[in-house]
Amino acid sequence: MRTSHDDKSEKRDKQDKSGDPSLLRRLNAAAALRVLRERAEITVPELAALIGVSRPTAQDLTAQLLREGRLVELEPGAGGVGRPARRFRFRAEAGHVLGVDVGAHKVLVLATDLLGRTVASHRLPVTPELSAARRLDAVRTAVARCLAGPAAAGLRPLATGVGTSGMVDPAGRVVTVSDSLPGWSGVDLSAALTGHAPGRVVVGNDIQLATLAEGTAGVAADTDDFLYLYVGNRLGIGLWLRGELHRGHHGAAGEMVAGDGWTVPYQRLLDWFAGHGGEARPTRENAARAVVRAAAAGDGGAAYTLRAFAHALADSLARHVAVLDPRAVVLGGGISRAGTLLSEPFAERLAALTPCPPEVRTSTLGEESTAIGAARLALDHVERPV
Amino acid sequence: MRTSHDDKSEKRDKQDKSGDPSLLRRLNAAAALRVLRERAEITVPELAALIGVSRPTAQDLTAQLLREGRLVELEPGAGGVGRPARRFRFRAEAGHVLGVDVGAHKVLVLATDLLGRTVASHRLPVTPELSAARRLDAVRTAVARCLAGPAAAGLRPLATGVGTSGMVDPAGRVVTVSDSLPGWSGVDLSAALTGHAPGRVVVGNDIQLATLAEGTAGVAADTDDFLYLYVGNRLGIGLWLRGELHRGHHGAAGEMVAGDGWTVPYQRLLDWFAGHGGEARPTRENAARAVVRAAAAGDGGAAYTLRAFAHALADSLARHVAVLDPRAVVLGGGISRAGTLLSEPFAERLAALTPCPPEVRTSTLGEESTAIGAARLALDHVERPV
Repeated sequence: MRTSHDDKSEKRDKQDKSGDPSLLRRLNAAAALRVLRERAEITVPELAALIGVSRPTAQDLTAQLLREGRLVELEPGAGGVGRPARRFRFRAEAGHVLGVDVGAHKVLVLATDLLGRTVASHRLPVTPELSAARRLDAVRTAVARCLAGPAAAGLRPLATGVGTSGMVDPAGRVVTVSDSLPGWSGVDLSAALTGHAPGRVVVGNDIQLATLAEGTAGVAADTDDFLYLYVGNRLGIGLWLRGELHRGHHGAAGEMVAGDGWTVPYQRLLDWFAGHGGEARPTRENAARAVVRAAAAGDGGAAYTLRAFAHALADSLARHVAVLDPRAVVLGGGISRAGTLLSEPFAERLAALTPCPPEVRTSTLGEESTAIGAARLALDHVERPV
Repeated sequence: MRTSHDDKSEKRDKQDKSGDPSLLRRLNAAAALRVLRERAEITVPELAALIGVSRPTAQDLTAQLLREGRLVELEPGAGGVGRPARRFRFRAEAGHVLGVDVGAHKVLVLATDLLGRTVASHRLPVTPELSAARRLDAVRTAVARCLAGPAAAGLRPLATGVGTSGMVDPAGRVVTVSDSLPGWSGVDLSAALTGHAPGRVVVGNDIQLATLAEGTAGVAADTDDFLYLYVGNRLGIGLWLRGELHRGHHGAAGEMVAGDGWTVPYQRLLDWFAGHGGEARPTRENAARAVVRAAAAGDGGAAYTLRAFAHALADSLARHVAVLDPRAVVLGGGISRAGTLLSEPFAERLAALTPCPPEVRTSTLGEESTAIGAARLALDHVERPV
């Protein structure tokens, strides 16, 4: 019996070396990279404990990642008794990605290292009226300028992520666009930029990518469940559920439809603006900016208007918060820069309307959120186990 | 060098037999049980291919599951050349669970085998006015009667799942209840039933459990993302996202708040009922039943009213569908039994309102959905790898 069992074990080992374990090895490598990215440095025993493998397995993994140039070995640490443990760090500079935000008013290109840290950027103003062909030209120009800048010397860009308003299909085509970008519906962004931007070009919806940025590098990076509310020229929702971006079955998650009454809150801002000598047809963001400025300067009427706007936003969002029960709501988009002038009355009203009020946080990523999310999308692509 | 590497391998094997692999083995066993539950019978090579392990590993797994009584070996199949392959099946009768639905009007108890197939049941009518103490008595009685019935002879119940309206905390306590069950808020269902129902008592929200039933045993068992709309005396939403029930950060996901306008659709039903000699203060379900009956019998006004109700439901749901972008919407609850009289106008209107219309399906689990989901909750508890 003993012998038969031993035979079986031997046979399994042989098989395991050829068949199954490649998947296991790739999963272990992916887990190791996840852990390594979050730490300044690590030893083999620490890695073993953190990803739950034996020390010899962790040793093999580090050797493999060193060979692949994903790790660097650090100088042995001083002090301690006996031979100092070998220490390693993730080689964030082993590759780079681009994150591109194609908007109505700007094209923003960021280059990041493998940790998602921005190392170079270029911003190119555009106008909402630009034709699709010219907008694509602007994207190609902005990418080229970002890569030609002094900060980009020595970069090894491996992939490009692109964020755009509108619904994006899995192939990277803009299916429909709710903002009024002329000719933008139907544009095959992935095809139009491949060859003009480094590596594979992956495309996502701008608000979904801003949500990805918040969940990985923003104020909600510690949170498994949050709802992102984009408050700019329109409202949009992003969902981060169980530690992942929720894209939806058709990739269209986050749309707010007419029945959601999302335009209602803005009316007060526009009315105030019109009553205070504002231009005839302001964008919603410009009207908001004027109200916020006046409220911050002590104008009581503007403060009241901003408060009413925040309450109306909460009214509009309460039903989604109640159904999803997230831990937090993150306010992003241009108007969220009003800070506590917006977030406090918003949180107050939300708490009155929902059975389990979430925390309310304000994004700190500013206008870079979509570009940061686009870079993360590209990183996900680079790091996906094949 | 060769020798040093071999030494390392040996060392790893030794370690792997004591440390890491227990998790891997448990994960493999869980994967094997999942595959086995979905098949009438299986051979070792089939199991190996389906869960992606080597044949010797699959052989070890089957041996282990046989020892634990989770598998039965079948008679060798006839025909074919050479020694017939050993065939196994999941031993569904190795254990049982109870699923209990505690409602305003009924207590329903189901006993199921480890495949979730109902083997015994007991239904005890109750009234909405019952005190909490008497409602708990009714639950204990219904459980005892179900287990005392002839169909329950030889059952080995291992755990009990309970569904109730209201928000349920992780300990099994009813935190708040929106239906008017007197004294029900604050009831510690898990504590009150432990010892009166078999095994560990796990508790969940009724609509969340109905959603679990649809996602595992109902019309959406093939679907990774769907939204369940409960249409009974009130509206409620259940979310099934990426193949799992979405409970929310506080376990409260699925609430429809006042701002959602969920009572609006019912008004037309109640108005029609009042205008056709119905009782003075009908439940919403009773009014709906009368409207459906009249519409099915060819009453044009009733058909119009039902259609308007379906449209108003779609108006109310469209915003959630747009934000979540699910593959399907499942209509459940008493009023969903109107079938296509409800689902067709509902689907039509939803398609007009949302950018990516989902399929619309009608539940076939009837009034058992919450009890079935409660049994699944208990099964999940029994089968969770320790």
